[in-house]
Amino acid sequence: MEGVDYLSDERKKTQFDVEAMKVAWAGSREALQLSDRMAKLVANDPAFEKFTRPMMGRKELMKNTLRKAAHGWKLIVDLRLTEEEAKWLRLYIDEPAYTDLHWGMFVPAIEGQGTEEQKKKWLPLAQKMQIIGCYAQTELGHGSNVQGLETTATFDPRTDEFVIHSPTLTSSKWWPGGLGKVSTHAVVYARLIVGGEFHGVHGFIVQLRSLEDHSPLPGITVGDIGMKFGNGAYNTMDNGVLRFDHVRIPRDQMLMRVTQVTKEAKIVQSDVPRQLIYGTMVYVRQTIVADASKALSRAVCIATRYSAVRRQFGSRNGGPETQVIDYKTQQSRLFPLLASAYAFRFVGEWLKWLYMDVKQRLAANDFSTLPEAHACTAGLKSLTTTATADGIEECRKLCGGHGYLVSSGLPELFAVYIPACTYEGDNVVLLLQVARFLVKTVSELGYKKPVGTTAYMGRVATLMQNNCAVQTAEGWLNPGAIVEAFESRAARMAVRCGRQLAKFENPEEGFAELSADLVEAAVAHCQLIVVSKFVEKLQQDIPGKGVKQTLEVLCYVYALFLLHKHQGDFLATGYLTPKQASLANDQLRTLYSKVRPNAIALVDSFSYTDHYLGSILGCYDGNVYPKLYEAAWKDPLNDSDVVDGFHEYVQPILKQKVRTAKL
Amino acid sequence: MEGVDYLSDERKKTQFDVEAMKVAWAGSREALQLSDRMAKLVANDPAFEKFTRPMMGRKELMKNTLRKAAHGWKLIVDLRLTEEEAKWLRLYIDEPAYTDLHWGMFVPAIEGQGTEEQKKKWLPLAQKMQIIGCYAQTELGHGSNVQGLETTATFDPRTDEFVIHSPTLTSSKWWPGGLGKVSTHAVVYARLIVGGEFHGVHGFIVQLRSLEDHSPLPGITVGDIGMKFGNGAYNTMDNGVLRFDHVRIPRDQMLMRVTQVTKEAKIVQSDVPRQLIYGTMVYVRQTIVADASKALSRAVCIATRYSAVRRQFGSRNGGPETQVIDYKTQQSRLFPLLASAYAFRFVGEWLKWLYMDVKQRLAANDFSTLPEAHACTAGLKSLTTTATADGIEECRKLCGGHGYLVSSGLPELFAVYIPACTYEGDNVVLLLQVARFLVKTVSELGYKKPVGTTAYMGRVATLMQNNCAVQTAEGWLNPGAIVEAFESRAARMAVRCGRQLAKFENPEEGFAELSADLVEAAVAHCQLIVVSKFVEKLQQDIPGKGVKQTLEVLCYVYALFLLHKHQGDFLATGYLTPKQASLANDQLRTLYSKVRPNAIALVDSFSYTDHYLGSILGCYDGNVYPKLYEAAWKDPLNDSDVVDGFHEYVQPILKQKVRTAKL
Ligand SMILES: Cc1cc2nc3c(=O)[nH]c(=O)nc-3n(C[C@H](O)[C@H](O)[C@H](O)COP(=O)(O)OP(=O)(O)OC[C@H]3O[C@@H](n4cnc5c(N)ncnc54)[C@H](O)[C@@H]3O)c2cc1C
Ligand SMILES: Cc1cc2nc3c(=O)[nH]c(=O)nc-3n(C[C@H](O)[C@H](O)[C@H](O)COP(=O)(O)OP(=O)(O)OC[C@H]3O[C@@H](n4cnc5c(N)ncnc54)[C@H](O)[C@@H]3O)c2cc1C
Repeated sequence: MEGVDYLSDERKKTQFDVEAMKVAWAGSREALQLSDRMAKLVANDPAFEKFTRPMMGRKELMKNTLRKAAHGWKLIVDLRLTEEEAKWLRLYIDEPAYTDLHWGMFVPAIEGQGTEEQKKKWLPLAQKMQIIGCYAQTELGHGSNVQGLETTATFDPRTDEFVIHSPTLTSSKWWPGGLGKVSTHAVVYARLIVGGEFHGVHGFIVQLRSLEDHSPLPGITVGDIGMKFGNGAYNTMDNGVLRFDHVRIPRDQMLMRVTQVTKEAKIVQSDVPRQLIYGTMVYVRQTIVADASKALSRAVCIATRYSAVRRQFGSRNGGPETQVIDYKTQQSRLFPLLASAYAFRFVGEWLKWLYMDVKQRLAANDFSTLPEAHACTAGLKSLTTTATADGIEECRKLCGGHGYLVSSGLPELFAVYIPACTYEGDNVVLLLQVARFLVKTVSELGYKKPVGTTAYMGRVATLMQNNCAVQTAEGWLNPGAIVEAFESRAARMAVRCGRQLAKFENPEEGFAELSADLVEAAVAHCQLIVVSKFVEKLQQDIPGKGVKQTLEVLCYVYALFLLHKHQGDFLATGYLTPKQASLANDQLRTLYSKVRPNAIALVDSFSYTDHYLGSILGCYDGNVYPKLYEAAWKDPLNDSDVVDGFHEYVQPILKQKVRTAKL
Repeated sequence: MEGVDYLSDERKKTQFDVEAMKVAWAGSREALQLSDRMAKLVANDPAFEKFTRPMMGRKELMKNTLRKAAHGWKLIVDLRLTEEEAKWLRLYIDEPAYTDLHWGMFVPAIEGQGTEEQKKKWLPLAQKMQIIGCYAQTELGHGSNVQGLETTATFDPRTDEFVIHSPTLTSSKWWPGGLGKVSTHAVVYARLIVGGEFHGVHGFIVQLRSLEDHSPLPGITVGDIGMKFGNGAYNTMDNGVLRFDHVRIPRDQMLMRVTQVTKEAKIVQSDVPRQLIYGTMVYVRQTIVADASKALSRAVCIATRYSAVRRQFGSRNGGPETQVIDYKTQQSRLFPLLASAYAFRFVGEWLKWLYMDVKQRLAANDFSTLPEAHACTAGLKSLTTTATADGIEECRKLCGGHGYLVSSGLPELFAVYIPACTYEGDNVVLLLQVARFLVKTVSELGYKKPVGTTAYMGRVATLMQNNCAVQTAEGWLNPGAIVEAFESRAARMAVRCGRQLAKFENPEEGFAELSADLVEAAVAHCQLIVVSKFVEKLQQDIPGKGVKQTLEVLCYVYALFLLHKHQGDFLATGYLTPKQASLANDQLRTLYSKVRPNAIALVDSFSYTDHYLGSILGCYDGNVYPKLYEAAWKDPLNDSDVVDGFHEYVQPILKQKVRTAKL
């Protein structure tokens, strides 16, 4: 059976140049090559095997992860990998580990909030991993509300030290990844108290464990917070709990780029503006959007390949049954997710650009686009992670019963992915921030020109009046018509919220009362961004036979799927007539037929190895059934014909001896 | 801290008689008492502890489940529990086990499909658990399409036996619960071959394992299919794989109530009509709807209590922060789920009645309501399980970061629950069946009076014409207006599909092409059923101060939430104006405020023990933080300060010795 491609008929149907699509997905030929190189490095190294992960107990699991992380670091050092290569290597190792937080949060926190001196001292240590760090912000009692953190950092001018303390149970640090068992250091967020007064929440570099024997330092209680969702999943990460009993650190371990405390207990604000911190947030959230397209595309790749392999019903005269991918219901669930994966990929690419742009402007002391960029990334983080979490689970359901097996890869993918909806900003809290920004934009329209992704608000008068002109199903195959529809819907919903808010005497009360509607307006705005960035992407040159045409189809699928799903918004705001909404739906059905022949090639274009996918249902060759069958026998329960516990707990029942049995 | 009720302020706000609400939820005072008695029996017995479950490896987990099942059976025997009591006991033990399939599928299959003689022989054995059975229908290659099963049962008249055989890899039985390690017997579904001819798929009682030493019998290969979604979750169940190599069974082990094979190899149809089988399906699906309300109410109970405990933001002058349950966004996500739990409870109660009604009619040879009852239960199974699966995950998100901890109870609840969307009929396949029935009903309107839940179609002319008369937000507080809105929407969508179908020459092609729209029409029809059964429930006498009024609020919340979510349907069909939809939404906000003071009491009314909830976030006394903190330290990772693997895999990194380390 080895070597047969069960999906070759599908691959023959392809109407575009797959290699060129891979480049379009990766961003450039170089990016593709680099990513492929790292993917293969991992896939061909037995040290990174991941099949047995879900069967391990917690300790074994953690040990295994530490081993993989060390092996990965060894490769990075041995092969002198660049930072970019190391990033891809870690991604393809595909196992949450303390390294994610060390590289993704600890180092950036010092880079962003440390003074030059502090960076000079700490970054080399961190970059060589002579210390391992994590990001300790959230506490048992406070996550979303960072200003409510209770840990205190009290300045003691006599010793020139800060005293870090956990005054209450709820002030225990709780959740930081890598904290529980591995990190030697942490950036700890705490209430700065100087001269008995509170001066805001700031970050402090605190050593937690001895660099000799790794035991927790005096005054420090640290441990793991326990099991999380899923089998292996995120349980490879030592999310931790941490308490301080009057732990002293030198004054120069407060991150002082923005605010400084002097020896003399004076608070000095540097000339670096506070908003700089937003720059880091834009950066982190942009990576989360990129991760969303990665996770969703993996799930979609699995569900698409399996839907082409799986046949059920519809056999005529003993011939083969229908591939489930040919059912319109399957297509109407699957293809919008395929289109979303591409949409998120391109909006992520654009966000990367946006971050660069913001960075350059900040360097030139131009803060004008920052609020808009901040709202935009908050909204896109929320939109893409929510859609991805739901999308992974939908992909699992699309695989019927077999999707429920861990060997399908989908349960683990889901369990690992979902906290992205919560960390780096709870998705609903983020949408409320977007809503606040939108309402402000609307209220200032008279005298302030909206910029960036809110520029369309400048045409609000037109958008409130013009109605949709589409008159046929084909009429919807028009980027202008699509974007205008989404702009009008978003603008009308925002304006409507603004008008309702105006009826309240107390605007804060109004905002609270109407917040559910405000969230809907924020979603409409964010969807517009994704749709228009996809449309803009297609205005660029995209080489390769059929590549652009195929992406156009996906772009329409994404937009018209949203339009259908939210037709209530479009109809309620009066922009569309029921007839036009119905035409859009007709067009959507036609588009699904256009996606169908290219479906397998579109997921092949993600260029994922079978190792990275980690799914029997999604394997490249489609040879699903023998692999499922073989994998089953590896479960520990199959070690013996008669299961452990049979004699004690089943035999007595069968023999009618349960009343006297010792259980 | 022991004994303090952190939710007592909440409980004081209650505006209704909680004990009476408990009765309303349970169905009767007797039902409540019985259920409470069993819940306490389990909760107070340390043998049923479940906290450590997620930390166990597969073998240990299974052994633990076998122990609990034996202990449960011992209680049933020792205390001479009635069948009803035993059912509740198993439910509160709250651990999927082979017993679920033995009692829930094996016994009913023999009862429903066996002849009197067969029942006399097999039922006593099964009822005393001298044999343990499972239900082996699904194969590696076929689940939804039962007619496509490949296992063969070939009659050999020379020996008066059937030869059961697995001719292909894909014919391997795959998924049956209890099959892998425990069952001694199975009802196996196979293609009946007599005289070289295929005579449909039928059930056969096959012994799988020796009753002496439990080893698989000759010709039988049986094992577990491996890990499934979640930590403990459904991994306590030995879903199995099974292959037959020409296994012979006596002729009288084919279940012959409907079709018989004689010694002489003749096929005889008994006078029992085939439709009888639908009766069993109505029964099983009715229990699934009841389970949906159980699962959803558990999740809602956890999220509601935690939302009242959790405070975040909004502190003024150092006072306490806002309880997150007071945020309108939290309410708009949580309260519709609370209302859904009640709605599903009442529609489940009605379905129980429907099943009784069908049974009586069948006994009197009246098959007239069967197709409608079958479509109705199929649709309600799909609707309630989909909403419950999504609802549990939403409840988890409502708990912020802490919901991701296994100790919140929500991850396990989700992982155990979700296969309900797939087994006993994939939810989309079921909706397509409902759609088929609706289309048929519409096409026959001219000459056939629609019955039961489709009776409203008889008024289709009016429903197509009349538009909504509501003119104020208060106007929506009118059961008649609500039901008419849902009837009009459902009728218009079904008629519209019918018209579109009529444009196709080949109706089957039309059905396939339009299937995504047909599914939407089916959903609209099913939602109408739930709404109208809730409304009907409230027309009955419901004793207790404030009970009925509170339930009325929930009924409106459920209906108006759906109306808002699907406003696209209501607007597109022209039944509502945007203004009316907006008024409904305004009313919904007001209703949330009415739910708010009663929220805790409404979840207390489910009468769940802390054991059953299995959630630190949902514990009755609301004393969340100390319990979370204590539980963390029980994770095996916290056995030692320095984690296993540190010296091999972390130390070398810190000491810059990774290049020479043995990894
Ligand atoms: C896997 C994982 C890894 C993590 N890693 C880290 C880490 O490395 N370092 C770290 O410091 N932290 C980490 N965290 C913590 C994470 O950042 C927080 O959980 C997150 O910020 C959400 O905060 P919360 O848990 O307090 O949620 P809450 O704020 O308690 O949310 C509960 C509910 O209240 C609602 N809500 C809250 N405020 C409002 C409001 N103002 N208006 C309306 N609704 C509101 C939310 O929408 C939600 O439904 C991690 C968490 C997880 C799950
Ligand atoms: C936890 C669990 C326990 C189980 N227990 C048992 C048991 O005890 N005994 C037993 O016999 N079985 C059992 N099963 C099997 C279960 O009954 C099947 O998995 C279920 O019937 C779904 O069938 P499938 O897996 O073949 O899905 P498929 O039919 O392969 O579904 C795959 C996809 O195709 C779509 N699809 C299929 N047909 C159509 C169509 N005609 N039109 C449109 N779309 C279609 C589906 O919607 C789905 O999206 C169990 C399964 C699970 C997960």
